[in-house]
Amino acid sequence: MLVCGRRLLTALLQARRWPFQPSRDMRLVQFQAPHLTGPHLGLESGNGGGVINLSAFDPTLPKTMLEFLEQGEAALSVARRALAAQLPVLPRSEVTILAPVTRPDKVVCVGMNYMDHCREQNVPVPKEPIIFSKFGSSIVGPYDEIVLPPESQEVDWEVELAVVIGKKGKHIKAADAMAHVAGFTVAHDVSARDWQMTRNGKQWLLGKTFDTFCPLGPALVTKDSVADPHNLKICCRVNGNVVQSSNTNQMVFKTEELIAWVSRFVTVYPGDIILTGTPAGVGVFRKPPIFLKEPEQEEGWRRHWSLGHNQGFLQ
Amino acid sequence: MLVCGRRLLTALLQARRWPFQPSRDMRLVQFQAPHLTGPHLGLESGNGGGVINLSAFDPTLPKTMLEFLEQGEAALSVARRALAAQLPVLPRSEVTILAPVTRPDKVVCVGMNYMDHCREQNVPVPKEPIIFSKFGSSIVGPYDEIVLPPESQEVDWEVELAVVIGKKGKHIKAADAMAHVAGFTVAHDVSARDWQMTRNGKQWLLGKTFDTFCPLGPALVTKDSVADPHNLKICCRVNGNVVQSSNTNQMVFKTEELIAWVSRFVTVYPGDIILTGTPAGVGVFRKPPIFLKEPEQEEGWRRHWSLGHNQGFLQ
Repeated sequence: MLVCGRRLLTALLQARRWPFQPSRDMRLVQFQAPHLTGPHLGLESGNGGGVINLSAFDPTLPKTMLEFLEQGEAALSVARRALAAQLPVLPRSEVTILAPVTRPDKVVCVGMNYMDHCREQNVPVPKEPIIFSKFGSSIVGPYDEIVLPPESQEVDWEVELAVVIGKKGKHIKAADAMAHVAGFTVAHDVSARDWQMTRNGKQWLLGKTFDTFCPLGPALVTKDSVADPHNLKICCRVNGNVVQSSNTNQMVFKTEELIAWVSRFVTVYPGDIILTGTPAGVGVFRKPPIFLKEPEQEEGWRRHWSLGHNQGFLQ
Repeated sequence: MLVCGRRLLTALLQARRWPFQPSRDMRLVQFQAPHLTGPHLGLESGNGGGVINLSAFDPTLPKTMLEFLEQGEAALSVARRALAAQLPVLPRSEVTILAPVTRPDKVVCVGMNYMDHCREQNVPVPKEPIIFSKFGSSIVGPYDEIVLPPESQEVDWEVELAVVIGKKGKHIKAADAMAHVAGFTVAHDVSARDWQMTRNGKQWLLGKTFDTFCPLGPALVTKDSVADPHNLKICCRVNGNVVQSSNTNQMVFKTEELIAWVSRFVTVYPGDIILTGTPAGVGVFRKPPIFLKEPEQEEGWRRHWSLGHNQGFLQ
């Protein structure tokens, strides 16, 4: 699945590299390594590459993305210097990539925000964004296992472009919204359709927020590395099969409009994450519907997700 | 309104004092004072009384409730020693009481969880808890102003008993649930009915999570100070008029069942807050409905809430 995430971020990279060479893209990650105590902040040296330990460059930098983002431009400029320096790179095999943001104040989600996703369920395109949420506790790393809960028989996939807030704000105008964005990452809005659609008084929350239902990452790609967030290939694979393949140009409400909308209601804080909606290709609207299953139940659509170099099994 | 909160907590105290005297109740607060930098953790010396600065007793104690709760029994035992000691009390006039918990991972809310509240809206009592949420950014202190947003014309009150989680857990059995509770406090699930009921694809989140829509506190009363959380008077006043008056014995799903239910879906963490639902008497189901208004619009039901010794104006 996160092969797709990686492809998305690769697209981000390509969009930046041409025609804006030779600047290097900033791919911020949270990671662990056996010789380090606890999570650290790093720079991924290219998509799928090794990791530069930012603490080794400047021990005064925060060790979590949330604190890093709270320090704003001061911390970012240190990271830029680290990116420009010739620093030792920890091989990928020696690090574990975590979710790029953990313990945010908010995981904001947007429903029915792709034209093609509205078409596949035969509903009108919303006139206003439809906002729901996940709890922060549902966030896991991009290569972590997604736990298939015994409470649901209808666990579905939803790949999404995620926006990470870098600057506090309220009542933000769309024209000013990008100034509040730190960057972008890939998210999965894993969804238990039975709980989302027919239980819990039709409030979506429970079906969306089981533990592990928000894989995030690998990297937070800073906004200056993304030429156009609304012209990115976005796809999702399950067991190597492409199940979602679209472009962020299908988004109904774009990043700027979503930030303007959400900040009418709430103050956004550094580290807040906005999942911007999923394109067509989810399992629930197929005929017949397809959901993730136990490996022993069905070979073709089992709970095995391709995760790039890694292989993940839901459990 | 928070007069009602205080009354609820007074009821908690009384339930403990008789017949369990002479132990003193532990009323944990977050507070600020002019001579202190940033928020501190303290003990309220009785309902509405002065505050003992826990940092002055033990400078190694955390300064936020979240970190305090994460330290579990070790931190609690220090607070118990502080409670037993004869320590200087900062007069109430010199401190500002904040929300007892800030930046939780989750604010879990329960809909239609009082028998009398189901009756007033003429709906069947739910067979399962109905779970929704607020963002942590909606939390304000018990004497802070509630901001009436221009986006809503139907802002309503909902007093609630709030449970604060003290110990991490998943798949918690009801019989074990109280071991995961740190204590109780008072919350207001302030609700923009227009946004809750008719907008946002009928997802309640936006109507529930405007900034300032979750007044909390004043004190987190530890569970050992509460004889029976399900036999407490709970009431809400607006402009001095009682608008909600019930008892927590009207709760459909009690604390233990709610924790068991929620932890089927998500891991609960120290500091997580569960708002357990509101009793009858909300404005929207009155005939005609009554909502909070600008002071200049209507004298009787203006945006002026009685806040104990304080007076708060929505703005």
